[in-house]
Amino acid sequence: MRTVQGDIESALTRLLAREVRVACAGRTDAGVHALGQVVTTPDATDDVDVDKLRRALNGMCGPAIAFAACREVPEGFHARFSARSRTYAYAVLEGDTPDPFLARTTLHHPRVLDIEAMNEAAGHLVGPHDFTSFGRPADAGGSAERVLFELGWRRSGRIVVMTARANAFVQQMVRSLAGTLIEVGEARRSPDDMLDVVAARDRSAAGAVAPPHALCLLAVEYDDGWSGPPDSEPAARARI
Amino acid sequence: MRTVQGDIESALTRLLAREVRVACAGRTDAGVHALGQVVTTPDATDDVDVDKLRRALNGMCGPAIAFAACREVPEGFHARFSARSRTYAYAVLEGDTPDPFLARTTLHHPRVLDIEAMNEAAGHLVGPHDFTSFGRPADAGGSAERVLFELGWRRSGRIVVMTARANAFVQQMVRSLAGTLIEVGEARRSPDDMLDVVAARDRSAAGAVAPPHALCLLAVEYDDGWSGPPDSEPAARARI
Repeated sequence: MRTVQGDIESALTRLLAREVRVACAGRTDAGVHALGQVVTTPDATDDVDVDKLRRALNGMCGPAIAFAACREVPEGFHARFSARSRTYAYAVLEGDTPDPFLARTTLHHPRVLDIEAMNEAAGHLVGPHDFTSFGRPADAGGSAERVLFELGWRRSGRIVVMTARANAFVQQMVRSLAGTLIEVGEARRSPDDMLDVVAARDRSAAGAVAPPHALCLLAVEYDDGWSGPPDSEPAARARI
Repeated sequence: MRTVQGDIESALTRLLAREVRVACAGRTDAGVHALGQVVTTPDATDDVDVDKLRRALNGMCGPAIAFAACREVPEGFHARFSARSRTYAYAVLEGDTPDPFLARTTLHHPRVLDIEAMNEAAGHLVGPHDFTSFGRPADAGGSAERVLFELGWRRSGRIVVMTARANAFVQQMVRSLAGTLIEVGEARRSPDDMLDVVAARDRSAAGAVAPPHALCLLAVEYDDGWSGPPDSEPAARARI
């Protein structure tokens, strides 16, 4: 299967004329987008012109992959292991009429969601929890304890966006949070139900896993404050 | 070849259980998008529930086609022949870094364009002209005289958009206007050059035809003021 990581490794292997492997900050499921993905490699040498490399990568990897910035990092810096937190967004298009321009990046939901209830429910999920009900750790037998720093929904026109920031996420956790909170927004669950869902430590206690195409890795935060490309704030992005 | 018009006709033929043909206000080239397309048919009967029809069409034609509104029109109203004018937008993404989320709807242009010069050039093109230099009439031997009511560029962040409104356009006219004005924005032509291009009445006098994927039919204007769906203003549309 063709992957973003595979395409980047192929391009770098050609450009640097050596076998290159990269690490991605967020290993996203198929269909998930990323605005602020961070990728590192230990396989580049000191004499690489990073700006020239960035232009060459943009020429080779487009149009589905773009490199917003490219720089040298300190010895031992690793896109995934050095990250303090990751921020994801899940986007829902509310209302009767679908939008072909947004069909690839939003989940169409015909009815208006009760985002006050969704935010009340989200409040029960913020904090350190065992998120077994919302997903599986990548390592079999590993812990599902994660710290959810931020979880909330806001409305902008017809688009309702969930922002989720955690030290790390278990597999399918953001989509499972989105799917479960959407059920709260439809009044199929109560906000307080979230307390039981977390306590159950059982996948079947949570709601449906929302589809991947409306999920986007927004940014990755490190100790030095770098959090993805400078223009990664989606609200500031215009479209025709 | 699969077309938007063909898909709509197939869906209506099934839903109304009779052979249905439709007329589109703007017959766009392959690859061109539309936000405010208007379609009429004389083949529906008076007893059709238009809101129910709209929902059924949205269920059958998605995700690439969406029906924002559906209503009965007066006898003799025709999407194309009753239109007073059409408004198109051509969108350019400026700057070094491509944007995968906008790759399908904008033309990526690595350098910053001189939109003051482009607007000065556009001023020479507004008005009634023979637009033979910018395109061919659909009917062989037909006139290329059109009235261009509005032509101008504005910048919103990294996106530079041309808006063009005319009573009608000859084939490839908007893309040819965009391509020629982009050459002005790159200082490869002077604004006053437009006077010669129009006077030449020769396709080779104009610049390149800009690619279709960045062109969008925004709205169609009629005597009763209806101009596409109510939420068709692209600047008001959010995206993640």
